[in-house]
Amino acid sequence: MSAAVVLVTDYGVDDAYAAALIGAIWRVDPSLRCVAGTHGVPLGDLLAGAYSVKSVGRAFAPGTVICAVVDPGVGTQRGAIAIDAGGVFCVAPDNGLVAYLWNEAPAQSRRCVTVDVPEHASPTFHGRDVFAPVAARLAAGARLEECGAPTAQPVTLDAAFAVVEPGGVAGRVIAVDHFGNAITSVRDVDLDGRRVVAASWEHGCVQEVARTYAEIGTGLAAVLGSAGHVEVAADGRPAASLGGPRRGQVVRVEVEG
Amino acid sequence: MSAAVVLVTDYGVDDAYAAALIGAIWRVDPSLRCVAGTHGVPLGDLLAGAYSVKSVGRAFAPGTVICAVVDPGVGTQRGAIAIDAGGVFCVAPDNGLVAYLWNEAPAQSRRCVTVDVPEHASPTFHGRDVFAPVAARLAAGARLEECGAPTAQPVTLDAAFAVVEPGGVAGRVIAVDHFGNAITSVRDVDLDGRRVVAASWEHGCVQEVARTYAEIGTGLAAVLGSAGHVEVAADGRPAASLGGPRRGQVVRVEVEG
Amino acid sequence: MSAAVVLVTDYGVDDAYAAALIGAIWRVDPSLRCVAGTHGVPLGDLLAGAYSVKSVGRAFAPGTVICAVVDPGVGTQRGAIAIDAGGVFCVAPDNGLVAYLWNEAPAQSRRCVTVDVPEHASPTFHGRDVFAPVAARLAAGARLEECGAPTAQPVTLDAAFAVVEPGGVAGRVIAVDHFGNAITSVRDVDLDGRRVVAASWEHGCVQEVARTYAEIGTGLAAVLGSAGHVEVAADGRPAASLGGPRRGQVVRVEVEG
Repeated sequence: MSAAVVLVTDYGVDDAYAAALIGAIWRVDPSLRCVAGTHGVPLGDLLAGAYSVKSVGRAFAPGTVICAVVDPGVGTQRGAIAIDAGGVFCVAPDNGLVAYLWNEAPAQSRRCVTVDVPEHASPTFHGRDVFAPVAARLAAGARLEECGAPTAQPVTLDAAFAVVEPGGVAGRVIAVDHFGNAITSVRDVDLDGRRVVAASWEHGCVQEVARTYAEIGTGLAAVLGSAGHVEVAADGRPAASLGGPRRGQVVRVEVEG
Repeated sequence: MSAAVVLVTDYGVDDAYAAALIGAIWRVDPSLRCVAGTHGVPLGDLLAGAYSVKSVGRAFAPGTVICAVVDPGVGTQRGAIAIDAGGVFCVAPDNGLVAYLWNEAPAQSRRCVTVDVPEHASPTFHGRDVFAPVAARLAAGARLEECGAPTAQPVTLDAAFAVVEPGGVAGRVIAVDHFGNAITSVRDVDLDGRRVVAASWEHGCVQEVARTYAEIGTGLAAVLGSAGHVEVAADGRPAASLGGPRRGQVVRVEVEG
Repeated sequence: MSAAVVLVTDYGVDDAYAAALIGAIWRVDPSLRCVAGTHGVPLGDLLAGAYSVKSVGRAFAPGTVICAVVDPGVGTQRGAIAIDAGGVFCVAPDNGLVAYLWNEAPAQSRRCVTVDVPEHASPTFHGRDVFAPVAARLAAGARLEECGAPTAQPVTLDAAFAVVEPGGVAGRVIAVDHFGNAITSVRDVDLDGRRVVAASWEHGCVQEVARTYAEIGTGLAAVLGSAGHVEVAADGRPAASLGGPRRGQVVRVEVEG
């Protein structure tokens, strides 16, 4: 069974752009499995994109190649990279989109190469002409080193990473999901095994910490979500409708003891 | 050719949740074909979800496995099931989501087992950790009995079923589709071969019955839709924009003679 | 590796209609690769649909079969066709949906047949019962002539084609994409190698012509998009938010010398 390519973009699904990535992949190798990670990253939103890339990276087996394109700088001098993050590969613009995926892979099992932009590439569609073909080559069995020159590490994204402080962790809302859960940059790795006891943001806070959405009741609660990030959630409606924090807002998570 | 797994959820397509189901399926067997039935079931809407599950069940060949997750009670004590409904399989929370699929399969060719929730399952993401892996095992050839203990039948959903009355059938709008057609719970099986002659709801009625949308003209008409449910439809615009019934509203369908 | 079927419809993704096409295709041949070109064509919009069909046709390798269903006349007397457009196939209602794909294929390598509607076809769902099965047969290796009787050419769509005038080309906005770019009917083939220098529409014009979105700056610019159509675009927001032309509006593109 050949490897899978999983697409993460801000292209939406109402145009043929996402399909064009699959067309480009199948021109390299029509036997490759292609699937949408999501095409619903908010336009140009690198934080939400990095969260989606990481979520996909956790969901799929080693050997999977993520083709990630949230690329406000398409056609400019920003670089292009391919990485191996502990066995999951990702091809993307070098703008921070792989920040979590890279950060959470063991240091000894991650590698990064820079990818060249072919002369024939459309200046407005590197997804099709740069990232998808490289993703396809990797999925078809090419080694990372065949795809570009080694480089130390990808561009990072400072805003993606929470800051551990005395008694808590300070982060921000990096994504709001379809259920209206406000997903923060505070991760299980930041908590370091300590239990969450509360979360606060400008004009709001929660002292309830829930294990499931259904047990939240009528208010808000902090939940450790399925991808390992602290969320502020309500049951059956958007957290924001009950005063929860909004995209970009700073959230401080308090931990026990 | 291995079996296909078709996903029906209320996850939307803007997050990586739907993809995580595919990741979990491919961890069991990467050769399985995976496709979205729809991820656009309205949040937590079991009636609309049951209609989508049934529509998918009709569309795909026997042997197909539906992984259905509309699961407001995720992580609580609600059960989990896998069913064989006349050759089409479905893995789902035991909350009524399979009501139509089960109801419309011949009694002698349907079976139900309860599925255990593994200890390691994320309390907020049984789709990934419970339903998808079982769907994958079934699609990969496991027998239903290997997936859980036999039980008599799934939880049903009373609101999904119309009531046959003298001269007509009383149901409700269970879904409004992308074209704005108001799909009711009144099914071909409820009509029992009798011709629809009218439909009425609070503050509205139609006496026109159309075979195609294009022949409706400028008003509303009743149409027997492609999945066997009576719809109230307009041509080229939402039925609601002409006073048609809304989601949840009671509709009485009059039949001939 | 068997051929791929790419779906282009106005079905949206919130119902099971799009999946029903795949179900119908896999009933013919479960080994066929199926993928969404897009299901987000605006309801009944043949111009935008023709643009999506053409975009998909460019993106996928020869041998690919497009199943295109934007079909306001479903169930009426409008015809059904299958075409070979330079090696890419398309099955569609004969309503102009293949206008660009047909027009841009070399005359000597295009063929058209009319497809019969089976008696059992649901009058409201020819996508499932007419177009998808024929697309599957073609992808599975049937010759075009086995799918219907030869006919001279498909119905065209006059509004899809720009008019070359002295010093410029007059077209209209046929689609607005997810990024808010206003895509016009003025194509690279209409420009005939001449450079774009400006574009104008009622109450607006641009004199800037950009190679990438990022270099546009704070205003609007004309861009030759990745599918070969002139767009009016802004950087990071919808062109319409800066006074750009709207869907359907006439746009005149000025060319050099």
